[in-house]
Amino acid sequence: MAGTYWDREVGFVEISEEVAVDRAEMIAYAKKNDPWPIHIDESVGGASIFGDVTASFGYVVSLFLQALHTLPSNQGPQEGFLGALEWKIQFRRAVLATDRLHVRVEIISKRPTSKGDRGVLTTRADFLNQDGEPTVVIDAVSLFQTEPQAV
Amino acid sequence: MAGTYWDREVGFVEISEEVAVDRAEMIAYAKKNDPWPIHIDESVGGASIFGDVTASFGYVVSLFLQALHTLPSNQGPQEGFLGALEWKIQFRRAVLATDRLHVRVEIISKRPTSKGDRGVLTTRADFLNQDGEPTVVIDAVSLFQTEPQAV
Repeated sequence: MAGTYWDREVGFVEISEEVAVDRAEMIAYAKKNDPWPIHIDESVGGASIFGDVTASFGYVVSLFLQALHTLPSNQGPQEGFLGALEWKIQFRRAVLATDRLHVRVEIISKRPTSKGDRGVLTTRADFLNQDGEPTVVIDAVSLFQTEPQAV
Repeated sequence: MAGTYWDREVGFVEISEEVAVDRAEMIAYAKKNDPWPIHIDESVGGASIFGDVTASFGYVVSLFLQALHTLPSNQGPQEGFLGALEWKIQFRRAVLATDRLHVRVEIISKRPTSKGDRGVLTTRADFLNQDGEPTVVIDAVSLFQTEPQAV
C-alpha cells in the first residue's frame, strides 16, 4: 500500500493486536505515579462497584501506545507525520487487571490547512476490552505534510 | 479549608510541586511503550529541531499525574469525586530530558447536572516547564457528588 497515512481515505480503519493488562505492573505504575486507593489497594478496589482495583489513566495510555505500535501503518517510519495537535479522551469504562485490550482506529476527517503543503487529520481510536466495550475513546488531531518534501 | 473540591469557586487555582524528567527513565519508558526514533534514539533527537530526544506523551502523563498528587487538594481522600468524564489535551511544546515541570490547575466551570446531587466541574491544567512555557494543556471534565452522601 503506497503513500503516507495522509493518503488514506476518510473511513480507513485499522485494528491493533491485543495487549493484556499485567496486574503487578498496573499496580506498580499507580504506586509510582498515581497512588489513589482505587488504583493500588485491592481491598478498596474489591469493595468498589468495579470489584477490583482499576488502572490509572497513565497506565491505560501506556497500553494504548503499545497497541498503536502494532498497527500496520505504524510498522515503518511515520512519513509525513509532523505532530499531534490535540487529543480528546472520553472515559467510558474502567480498565481492570484482567482486561485484554485492542484499539480500532478510524480516520474521521481530513482537511488541508491554509499553508498548502500541510493537512490536519483526525482519527477516532476506540480502546476496546475483551468484551468489545470501549474503555477510552480518543479523538486525535494530527498535523501532516501532504506533499513529498523537497530534498 | 472545609468542604470538597466541588465547594471551591470558579477561578480557584493551585500550583503543584516540581517534577523533574529523568533522561534514562524517559527513554526506557519510550522503548517499552512508544518506540518512535524521536523518543528513543539520541542521534535522531539530536538532529531534530528539538536538539534532543523528546518525551513520549505517555511519559508526560506519568509526570503530570505525579505532579497532581502534590497539589494541596489531593493530600486527603478525593471526597465527592465520582470520576473523569473527558480530557481535552492540547500539545503545545515537546518535553525534553532536561525539563523540570509543574502544573497550575484552575477551576474554569461548574454546573449541576439534572440529577440534583451531582455536578460537572471543569479544570484547566497547564503543565509548565522551567521557563514557564506550557508543554501540554489539559482541560479535564469530572463528575462530583455535590451534597454529602446519606450514610
